[in-house]
Amino acid sequence: MGLTETPPPPYWAVVFSSLRTAGDHGYAAMAEAMESLARLQPGFLGFEHARDESRGISVSYWRSPEAIRAWRENLEHQQAQRAGRERWYARYQVRICKVERAYGCEQSR
Amino acid sequence: MGLTETPPPPYWAVVFSSLRTAGDHGYAAMAEAMESLARLQPGFLGFEHARDESRGISVSYWRSPEAIRAWRENLEHQQAQRAGRERWYARYQVRICKVERAYGCEQSR
Repeated sequence: MGLTETPPPPYWAVVFSSLRTAGDHGYAAMAEAMESLARLQPGFLGFEHARDESRGISVSYWRSPEAIRAWRENLEHQQAQRAGRERWYARYQVRICKVERAYGCEQSR
Repeated sequence: MGLTETPPPPYWAVVFSSLRTAGDHGYAAMAEAMESLARLQPGFLGFEHARDESRGISVSYWRSPEAIRAWRENLEHQQAQRAGRERWYARYQVRICKVERAYGCEQSR
């Protein structure tokens, strides 16, 4: 699995940091369904996530703040957000960010 | 370990996504030293990270773009960045972001 390719800035990012509750409770299946659904949304640019035992960070990239708002208001996604609050996350933090600069490095070895 | 507390926006975030090379090669010790050093920098607000087997996401939060620039140019940090490019990361991507909105949720159960 590589890193997410994104166009030159500016674009937007949603940084979602979470502490999970214990157990799965349908989380893995819903996370996969939501990632598939996000990929279909207008203005979706990419997604990356990493997870330790308890803490996760997911970052989704979007063309505009309007695209983020539309995804947030998507009905299936709202249902998942509600389940997230009720069952999966002990705590979470969402940050809506404008990506102003980006650079990277790939080893050629 | 909780989530990072940050002040109300706007503030800035550096999202660092990476694919690691195999083996440690001094990575864990240097990562710990760099986190400690970052915490001493003016304008540092917080740090969170999560890591799968191969992929990591680290997000550091800063008061201003100037604080990010000063940290990027810190000599010890530059040395670590060089070692990162040479030894630890098969690939990485850095995104400098302005956090425009933030909200969260904590379960009271």
